[in-house]
Amino acid sequence: MRWSRYFLPTSKEPPKDAETVSHKLMCRAGMIDKTSSGVYTYLPAGYKVLKNVERIVRQEMDSAGAMELLMPALQPASLWKESGRLDEMGEEMIRFTDRHKRLMLFGPTHEEVITDIIRRYINSWKQLPVTLYQIQTKFRDEMRPRFGIVRAREFLMKDAYSFDRDEKGLDESYQKMKDAYVRIFERCGLDCSIQQADSGVIGGKFSEEFVAKGECPELEVGHIFKLGTKYSETMKALFVDRDGKEKPLVMGCYGIGVSRIVAAVIEGNYDKNGIVWPISVAPFSVLVVPTNMENTLIGSAAEKIYTSLVKDRIETLYDDRDLSAGVKFSDGDLIGIPLWVVIGKKFIEKGKLEIKIRREDRFVEVDTENITNWIRNYKQGK
Amino acid sequence: MRWSRYFLPTSKEPPKDAETVSHKLMCRAGMIDKTSSGVYTYLPAGYKVLKNVERIVRQEMDSAGAMELLMPALQPASLWKESGRLDEMGEEMIRFTDRHKRLMLFGPTHEEVITDIIRRYINSWKQLPVTLYQIQTKFRDEMRPRFGIVRAREFLMKDAYSFDRDEKGLDESYQKMKDAYVRIFERCGLDCSIQQADSGVIGGKFSEEFVAKGECPELEVGHIFKLGTKYSETMKALFVDRDGKEKPLVMGCYGIGVSRIVAAVIEGNYDKNGIVWPISVAPFSVLVVPTNMENTLIGSAAEKIYTSLVKDRIETLYDDRDLSAGVKFSDGDLIGIPLWVVIGKKFIEKGKLEIKIRREDRFVEVDTENITNWIRNYKQGK
Repeated sequence: MRWSRYFLPTSKEPPKDAETVSHKLMCRAGMIDKTSSGVYTYLPAGYKVLKNVERIVRQEMDSAGAMELLMPALQPASLWKESGRLDEMGEEMIRFTDRHKRLMLFGPTHEEVITDIIRRYINSWKQLPVTLYQIQTKFRDEMRPRFGIVRAREFLMKDAYSFDRDEKGLDESYQKMKDAYVRIFERCGLDCSIQQADSGVIGGKFSEEFVAKGECPELEVGHIFKLGTKYSETMKALFVDRDGKEKPLVMGCYGIGVSRIVAAVIEGNYDKNGIVWPISVAPFSVLVVPTNMENTLIGSAAEKIYTSLVKDRIETLYDDRDLSAGVKFSDGDLIGIPLWVVIGKKFIEKGKLEIKIRREDRFVEVDTENITNWIRNYKQGK
Repeated sequence: MRWSRYFLPTSKEPPKDAETVSHKLMCRAGMIDKTSSGVYTYLPAGYKVLKNVERIVRQEMDSAGAMELLMPALQPASLWKESGRLDEMGEEMIRFTDRHKRLMLFGPTHEEVITDIIRRYINSWKQLPVTLYQIQTKFRDEMRPRFGIVRAREFLMKDAYSFDRDEKGLDESYQKMKDAYVRIFERCGLDCSIQQADSGVIGGKFSEEFVAKGECPELEVGHIFKLGTKYSETMKALFVDRDGKEKPLVMGCYGIGVSRIVAAVIEGNYDKNGIVWPISVAPFSVLVVPTNMENTLIGSAAEKIYTSLVKDRIETLYDDRDLSAGVKFSDGDLIGIPLWVVIGKKFIEKGKLEIKIRREDRFVEVDTENITNWIRNYKQGK
């Protein structure tokens, strides 16, 4: 991608309402834009990061044997009456009466919908265990939206639901999800602690939270629950067990704040100059920086290197803007791309490229023909 | 994926309210499940198809130089007051008053939000042209939801917005999108006609519809608009042109019904036994069908072939269910996977595999060691 044609509006000043590092940096680095209180647009670079997180979550869910579906945000209130949760939910849940005078709501979570699906299709122990998940937009009318996308009114969640014959099965499904969560957060470059937690309106008898340790505020990025039979009993999601008896399904549910991970990664990966992306979620792996576009030797070398990196399928941003090296470097630090290929003085003098490793603020000299291999090796080591 | 562990609830009978072939087949093939009137869950196989369509749309948008972002579904009504459209929208638009007594809505379209973003970041002709797009969930309180996901209350759309200096620029941006649309529909296996259309509440002076020619009902799958300065004038999205004068941006907008494409593909690709997926959007490329699981020769060969196809990264569904060949074949026809590897009599007698080409209802004999190559060649030819 050529920066001159890319919609990446960086700025020197953070918005006035920004209290946290991640909120300030996401706005300054042109990742998000506020449409209304607690309502944000992911601009192209921000959306690339969100999609990278999504990809990691999806891969680990699939590896753990969970199957992806997509449930609706719109839900009939009748399902929530059945489960008994309609009155428990406060003003955070967005409700409206539709044209046919039915009470509808925008689901802050999907236990009712998935239980309704499962009770209609699963009736035998032979069909168990099953774990299903989705990556889907949630709505919550927060009293006081804060911290940018962290406490927003619209956000992206991964929610998974497991169905088992008994407690032993639930323990196994729960452990599989817990292990997948550990891998997800590790791959995203997050350092998380696992804490026993209050199950709140989700319910069940046991739950654990994954909390990202990045400074202030502490960020809950995942929450997993042993629900037991709370929903299957009230909503009559029953199956016939091996012994011929009808029993309620034993459930678990597992949430990850996908958009919140993006903020948590920044809280744990920045310096005084900007974001320091782990390469696994970075919007681009490589930034190509010619220090002086007016020097034709530098300009044509940069163009050639950019083209060859794209051909080699390395996600590259090419700073082809006619700006001073100083401005390019400070913008580059701000948006935090892990590896920079700098084409400047050293190239003119010795024909060498310089790779800057953003995290270490260290430069390495590399021959032009080795650039792709060097980058691939670096990525593999991460 | 092993069918015995996959959540793919096929059924013999379509739901009573299903009027169209696509609605009937999507329900029978375990692709979708109804939560409420006009509100559907995409079950795992259905969601795979939707994601394949998404992937094609995304690739063609990126190739055309459009940049992906993600705007919110939640929008403040104040933006719609500014554009003058708030009163034009009927009861289809879902509105609610939030906890701070502000009127909010679930955007059926995003001209206001994107214009609001662009007017704050783009102020010079040097930053133009720009085309941005998103693949995002839309909500519409349809008076009479019908035809399954075709006229639903929640659906997936791709909407793109172009910004140019003048009419000539708009014509070029418009043509690029139109060309991309032709490629998208072709790759999805749709035969579309392009018709001049009424611009409705979107506005502007010229628009064209892409209509899938799949029997009854005719399906509008895309609609592209030359908006001109309708939004940029009322919302004051201005830029300074080369001549130093301030002018309103010249806009276009471009919609594709992503979920609707899935239904349109089925309407154009089925036979009396079920769906006949084009391989580009099929939930799986290959179905492995051992005709008799009790025969250990057949069972172990099927297991081996399935494992090797997965290793070769071919999306494969393995019908490992202990059911009769007849049931497997009719389920296979229903869900419409393009290529089947049948392991049965011919394998026992001659050591040969049979590939069934679902679309042609034709069998081809292939040696076990050539199976991946044969499938790759077939896919490349499509």
